[in-house]
Amino acid sequence: MPTEINVRVLLKSRPTGFPAEDDFEVVESPIPQPQQGEILLESMWLSLDPYMRGRMNDAKSYAPSVDIGEPMVGGAVGKVVESRSPLFNPGDIVEGRFGWQSYAISNGIGVRKVDESLAPVQTAVGVLGMPGLTAYFGFLDVCDPTPGDTVVVSAASGAVGQVVGQIAKIMGCKVIGTVGSEPKAKFIVEELGFDYAINYKTSDVAQSLDNICPEGIDVYFDNVGGIVTDAVMDRINIGARIAICGQISQYNLKTPDMAPRNLGLLTRSQAKMEGFLVFAYESRYDEGIARMASWIREGKLKYKEDVVIGLRNAPKTFIGMLNGENFGKTLIKVSE
Amino acid sequence: MPTEINVRVLLKSRPTGFPAEDDFEVVESPIPQPQQGEILLESMWLSLDPYMRGRMNDAKSYAPSVDIGEPMVGGAVGKVVESRSPLFNPGDIVEGRFGWQSYAISNGIGVRKVDESLAPVQTAVGVLGMPGLTAYFGFLDVCDPTPGDTVVVSAASGAVGQVVGQIAKIMGCKVIGTVGSEPKAKFIVEELGFDYAINYKTSDVAQSLDNICPEGIDVYFDNVGGIVTDAVMDRINIGARIAICGQISQYNLKTPDMAPRNLGLLTRSQAKMEGFLVFAYESRYDEGIARMASWIREGKLKYKEDVVIGLRNAPKTFIGMLNGENFGKTLIKVSE
Repeated sequence: MPTEINVRVLLKSRPTGFPAEDDFEVVESPIPQPQQGEILLESMWLSLDPYMRGRMNDAKSYAPSVDIGEPMVGGAVGKVVESRSPLFNPGDIVEGRFGWQSYAISNGIGVRKVDESLAPVQTAVGVLGMPGLTAYFGFLDVCDPTPGDTVVVSAASGAVGQVVGQIAKIMGCKVIGTVGSEPKAKFIVEELGFDYAINYKTSDVAQSLDNICPEGIDVYFDNVGGIVTDAVMDRINIGARIAICGQISQYNLKTPDMAPRNLGLLTRSQAKMEGFLVFAYESRYDEGIARMASWIREGKLKYKEDVVIGLRNAPKTFIGMLNGENFGKTLIKVSE
Repeated sequence: MPTEINVRVLLKSRPTGFPAEDDFEVVESPIPQPQQGEILLESMWLSLDPYMRGRMNDAKSYAPSVDIGEPMVGGAVGKVVESRSPLFNPGDIVEGRFGWQSYAISNGIGVRKVDESLAPVQTAVGVLGMPGLTAYFGFLDVCDPTPGDTVVVSAASGAVGQVVGQIAKIMGCKVIGTVGSEPKAKFIVEELGFDYAINYKTSDVAQSLDNICPEGIDVYFDNVGGIVTDAVMDRINIGARIAICGQISQYNLKTPDMAPRNLGLLTRSQAKMEGFLVFAYESRYDEGIARMASWIREGKLKYKEDVVIGLRNAPKTFIGMLNGENFGKTLIKVSE
């Protein structure tokens, strides 16, 4: 039995607008005891993802809110330190929704064993986990790409965007990524093989798209919404497919962002816009993981992680990610 | 050979905002002569449709603009009065894009013979023509309805909306129509069999939807856009399907209408929004016409026409339709 304490990050108050570190509370508790059928996990890697912002609100969504005083939700990779379940053994490396805490109890539902031979274990919450699978199914299924398609990906260096763009290149598409800094722009082109990058903070996105893809846009994989989406929508081609994965530009606004109504563009272009959640593809996760793992082995799919050490840094790191300060998949290294 | 003159309605100027009668010019010309391979048509019924507003603009769209000084475009039912084509005989009743004029020359491309046994010939530009087929394919293909779905149709007494709602009833759906007057509300419920009507001019659409369909909305067939769409979008269910057919609330605005960005609702609901044009289904028009004609014969599909006599009244009638003053499918009876 481990003798350390359980560090937990709780939701203290519901933010309006941007969250502050004060909206979280770090507490120390005794390490919980597993009951019959349960396992005790020691968290190794906590994933920080934009969707968590929605869980801080008390609004209708596709998943319940986090209650005040409860640990923040989140996917993590952990090690089984004690098992009272026949399904798991001490030492197993597993992935599940263990929350922002250094130890967690689980009944095993939704917990999957991580194949350590595929890639470093933290990829189970990254490229070979929820964000990567979101990219894989969102791009290949929702966007239905054809070789030669011109594809735009927003938040292109993020956990999802970096995978979308590389899969689009594997599929023979022309790929343009939008990012928020010059290092990110350089990275997605030089390291990941995107054809073009647009820094939306320093460039006129509409003008850049006109220069880069005068032929128009066939596929848009959207993680951000807002002005980037406006510029893309004005340039969609007949039969365009638009996957609405995330709208991070809207998550922290105190008052709703107003935009010109442009749904008529869908009619003019006979285009399809679809919102999706990766959970719909759960029965096919093994396919996605196997295929992406093979691309990683072949050197066709790279992944960039932004690792911060220590669970107590999770609130600050999460807020930074909402501000676009992360560079790649945001991870908290909870334990060695 | 007819001895009358050809009355033609030309586009005189491009409106900004709502068109005025001054934007059109009615001229009289000699009746044109068909060349070898051509036919001369006498127009009987001219269809007036919201899409024509877009043709008055000099903006990129799915079809070319009408040039200044040229006749307004539009579908019509006419009679062949002279044929120099082996494909048509004098006396044939045909449908095609003959424009706002009492006589037209055609080379036969895009002209189809009207089966007079199915229904009155003007239905070839109504329920058994472009608007009806738009409803048929837009609802059955784009919206993919299932019995028991809760369906909302905007502009529900219009040429497209009235057909969508009745097909939705045939398919076993719960159907709610939005309209702009009490007579229209009464009509769609009492005559067409919609389950509910909402008068968006006198009711709070959001509150009405909460009362009528607390279970949420599975299918939205949108002809109008704007505030009606906002209220529906806030209430879509998981897996909802939204067909963007038209956005008439936006066609005559001098400055773009601003709205809260709400694409995130698509993600939350894993919903699909698709813009479509009926022309994509051209290879299946015969199917749609045959099936709707049989529903008409069986009394399951009714249609309401709003007929104005005289081509010179087309501009005024068209402007009235953009204002929602029509009640049913707008037709100009060009000749007896």
